Order: sequence, then C-alpha cells, then structure tokens
Amino acid sequence: MRATVMYGAGDVRIETVPDARLIEPTDGLVRVTRAAICGSDLWPYKTMEHSETGRRMGHEFIGVVEAVGADVRTVKPGDLVVAPFLISDGTCVFCREGLTSSCLHGGRYGFDGVDGGQGEAVRVPQADGTLVVLPVGKDDALMPSLLTLSDVMATGHHAALSARVGPGKTVAVVGDGAVGLCGVLAARRLGAEQIILLGRHPDRIALARDFGATDVVSERGDAAVARVRELTDGFGAHSVLECVGFEQSMQAAISVARPGGAVGRVGVPQDETMPASRPAFYHNVTIAGGPAPARAYIEELLPDVLEGRIEPGCVFDRVVRLDEVPDCYRAMNDREAIKVLIEC
Amino acid sequence: MRATVMYGAGDVRIETVPDARLIEPTDGLVRVTRAAICGSDLWPYKTMEHSETGRRMGHEFIGVVEAVGADVRTVKPGDLVVAPFLISDGTCVFCREGLTSSCLHGGRYGFDGVDGGQGEAVRVPQADGTLVVLPVGKDDALMPSLLTLSDVMATGHHAALSARVGPGKTVAVVGDGAVGLCGVLAARRLGAEQIILLGRHPDRIALARDFGATDVVSERGDAAVARVRELTDGFGAHSVLECVGFEQSMQAAISVARPGGAVGRVGVPQDETMPASRPAFYHNVTIAGGPAPARAYIEELLPDVLEGRIEPGCVFDRVVRLDEVPDCYRAMNDREAIKVLIEC
Repeated sequence: MRATVMYGAGDVRIETVPDARLIEPTDGLVRVTRAAICGSDLWPYKTMEHSETGRRMGHEFIGVVEAVGADVRTVKPGDLVVAPFLISDGTCVFCREGLTSSCLHGGRYGFDGVDGGQGEAVRVPQADGTLVVLPVGKDDALMPSLLTLSDVMATGHHAALSARVGPGKTVAVVGDGAVGLCGVLAARRLGAEQIILLGRHPDRIALARDFGATDVVSERGDAAVARVRELTDGFGAHSVLECVGFEQSMQAAISVARPGGAVGRVGVPQDETMPASRPAFYHNVTIAGGPAPARAYIEELLPDVLEGRIEPGCVFDRVVRLDEVPDCYRAMNDREAIKVLIEC
Repeated sequence: MRATVMYGAGDVRIETVPDARLIEPTDGLVRVTRAAICGSDLWPYKTMEHSETGRRMGHEFIGVVEAVGADVRTVKPGDLVVAPFLISDGTCVFCREGLTSSCLHGGRYGFDGVDGGQGEAVRVPQADGTLVVLPVGKDDALMPSLLTLSDVMATGHHAALSARVGPGKTVAVVGDGAVGLCGVLAARRLGAEQIILLGRHPDRIALARDFGATDVVSERGDAAVARVRELTDGFGAHSVLECVGFEQSMQAAISVARPGGAVGRVGVPQDETMPASRPAFYHNVTIAGGPAPARAYIEELLPDVLEGRIEPGCVFDRVVRLDEVPDCYRAMNDREAIKVLIEC
C-alpha cells in the first residue's frame, strides 16, 4: 500500500510500504478515506535528523473498517470510524477517568509497528477502545468536521477546558493555527463572553471571527500583552489557550492571564523549562493542559458536529490526494495553508 | 518602639524605630502580642544585599487594636485581631472573588512605609478588609494555632486546594518545613486518604505523622520519586503540595504527580523558569498555586482551630521574646527550629 514517510527535516515521501494487516486479536484494520496533516507534524518537518528507515506519518483519520481481530466487539467490517490521535484501550484506570491520553496500554500511530494515518490503511491496536463509529456515510458533507474530532477540535476543546472556560468568561487564544482556531470555537461553545485571538494572518483572523472571536490582537510581544490588558479592563483574561508551544508564546500566555486565571496549554512544548514561573506564581495563575484525551471528548462533541452547531472542518483550506502530501507539508510550513485534508 | 530590621544576609537586629501611628483614615493601629518568623523570611536572610536603611521584617502577627482611623468600621480599639500576611481592602474585584492576595489596593508589611510584624506595633492599612477579630482573650491557649492563620496554615490550605486535594485522594507533600507540615494537616482536613511526606528531619516527621501523614519518604532525588511511585501503585499522587520553592523540589513535585494530577505550589519560586515543562505537559499535570489568599481562608479555618479539630500551632517549637529574634533567624536557617513564635 502507499503511505507517507518522513526521512528527515523537509524530506517527506509517498512510498509503497507493507500492507497493513491484523496482528493482535484486539486490532482493527481500517481503510483510510480521509486523513489530515497536523501542525505537530511540522515539528519533525522542521527538525528531524536524517533517518535511513524513515518515520510513518499521520495520526488523524477517518476510514472504513475492513477486518477486526477475534476479540474486537464494538466495531465491525463496514463501519465508518474516526480514530482519535492516540490509541487507548478504554478500560484502564486512566481511560475510565477520561484521561485516555495516558492509557496504560496506549500508543501512537507511526511508532512501534503501528501504521501512520497518512496512508491507504492502518492497523489500529485496541480497536474497541480507540475507534468511534460514525452514523453517516463515508462521503457525507460533514466529513471535514468529523475528521477534526480525531485531534484538532478535541485539542481546542481540551485547551478550553484546561483553561476553565465557561459562561461569561474572558478568553485569550495564543496562536492562530488550526488548533487555536478550534480553541476559539470551543470557547464560544462553552459560553465565553469575550474571545480575543492573538494572531496576524488575515485568512485565519477571518475564520476566527466566524468561529466567535470578538477581538483580534495582531501586535507582538509586550505590545500584544498591553493590548489584551486594554481589552480586559487592565486585568487580563480569565482563560488563556496556549496553542503554539514556544517559550515566547507561553510567556505571552502567562502574561495575559488575569490573576487567579488559568492557561490551558496544548501547543507541544519545545523547551525543557517553562518561562514566567514567578509571574504565574505571584498572580496565582494555573497552568494546565497537555495532549488532549480526544477519545473521551468525541461523544460530547459529535452531536454538535452532526447537528451543525459547530463546523470545525472550516479549518481545512486545502483538499488533496495522497501523492500531493509532500508539497502540502511545505505549504503548511510556509503558512500557505492552514490545514490540509487528504482524500485517500 | 522596638522592631526587627534586616540589613543584609545574616544581619538581623532589634532596633528602636519610629512609633507606629495612624496615617490614613482606613488604618488600624495594632499592638502586637504574638508574631512569628516565616520560612520566607529566610530567603532574604540567605541572600539580601547590604542595605544602609534596612528592611522591616515580619508579616504574621496577632495583636490588640489600639486605635483606628475615621473610616474603619469592623474593628475597634480593644479587639484582638489576627493579621493575614498580605493587606487587602475586602472590596475590590479580586477580594470579592476570594483572591485577596491580588487585592488592587493591597500591600505588604515591611514595605512602602508599613511596619513589619516582628515588632511592638504595626500600622495596618485597609484595617477593615485585612484584620479579623478573634473571639478569645489575648493569652488564650489557642494563640499559637490562631497565629498560624495569618500565613502558614492558610498557605498549607492553599497548597492543598491548589493541588485539588479531596476525599479519597492520594497526596504527596514536598518539604517538611512548617508550611509542608500544615499542608499535611490541610490535606487530612480535606479528606485525603493517603498523605506522603517527603522529608528527612526526625522531629518534623514525627509532627507530620501527628498531623496525618500516612507515609514518609526520606530518599532524595530520583530515589524519592521512585519510592512515591511504589507507594502509589506506580502511578504517582493525585495531589502534590510543593512547599519549598527550589527548582529541584518543583522537579520532584511534578515527577511524583499522577497523570491528570495537580501540583499546588506555595514555596516562593527561586528561579525564573519552571523545570519539567514537558513531563508536566505529557502527563496533563496541572500546576497551580501562589501566595495564599489567607484573609479569604480565615473564616473557613477559624472554627476548626477554635473547636480544636486542627492544631497547627504545633509547628512552633520555640517561643522567644523580641530580643531573641536575631538568633532565631539563625536557628531556623540552621534547621534547629521548625518555626519560632515571638511573644511581644
């Protein structure tokens, strides 16, 4: 079968790889119909050292179940399923608590012999715990929005929950990538009163306004912090969604938080240490977040997508075939595209 | 009057200073009857650069109101009052939210012309918002425990709340100083099932066990982390109270937290950055805490002290007169004393 393989920074190829097949009795074999390129795929695209064997890419996909192992009970061949970006068994102590991202028997696509999602098919371990059956046809118009449940919308929702967004709250969103935009949507969905996007790209700002942003701050650094304070009676935002992962963005996130407020961080941290430890301390700013337990959120978010109350699929501004994927990594990295949907 | 003045690291003196007196109409003048030396007073004791004018010390005290300004309504001459370690007006937006430590008109003892608490008298700004009347006589046997409401017990309570301690939770307390010990007490009070103290001093460990610690870990570094994991089914603690403020203690706190758990930090951070940003992220560990809004907690904690359900005053293991204070800084710094109570 064909699949996406990264061999190093800037070196993404579509190659023929061994066909995905069932190995464990808990596996499901999924024929991929839609996949996506994630902002987090750009970190290795920028920095990965050359590898002879390469690394299989992709962790957001929808597909049709082709076969299941003997122990699989909740999905069957023919089911259309969405795969959250992490594998989870659904039964361990953390899964039962809703923290599927810390599953004791979890795993990641593209690692440890598991296929990547940017390919024709995927062996999905822990199929019962991981996959969610979708009650629509495989070419339904909702497909882009349903695909965001695998990661980007779930991650925006996690940022918002971690930042304690709720009715009447003032929210700042640091980062205008697809996750930040979904964070805006999640904040509006949770009842935020004021949603300030920190971003500078006109197309992303336009989408953020559609998603519910009430204000946009395009300044950088200290000027951005000052502008957010101006917009919030001088106090800062109750809830700040950090959707980038750089030291500077975390610094900004803590700096625009209101005393007693919370930063929900979902941008993968690129540094060993966190900045602004003292300001966070002196203002009792809580720092929460991490990898979203997407599997645990899908049931909550799915009805809103199916009934059209949210349309997170709008973050996809390019739809391509698998062989166009390498150029799309470049386009996303160059910020020509917000997020790319792959029709397999 | 006589008061404690620090002139630099290791240089604490009892000196004659101008008598405390009312200045603003919102001031209260308090004749100090009991005061304390705080673990946070040891930071300048270790590091303060020499100062010609010196710095007035102390922010934990109980005393009798001697006079009040024209606008003061809730305290009157003759009242016995406890002063939380920060000044707050009780009316600003943050005070109304219970975050009195971020009061818009707040302040600190020993700064900006406000007396320190380790002296014979203190002008207390915002007397209505700050002071709490105690329904006991000035030499009541409960005095040590009542004095802890000004800081150390309130701070232990804040660590526990910030770490989301609750019934059935597993708790780890990093640091066996007076705040850590009060953190143990606060965790028990909030219903924790297992309370693990990380500490090494036999006298402190004994008190921790009296306060409710179920386990003690005296190893250091990675060995301590491994031991806490052993004691918690390999997962770590739901709630971790960081009561030191060093990079290594914060590293330990994050490392012993269970995925999805929370670190409540009240140790004054001694570094600009926070360690273990990635482990905290990947395990969705929340980091909360800061200066305790002691004023907001006193009403909640006071009945438990008055009715003897908690006895945080046990952290005082030395009672001295004002002129013995300089030597007591040394004794606390050398860990000869846990915490010193001053009878003024």
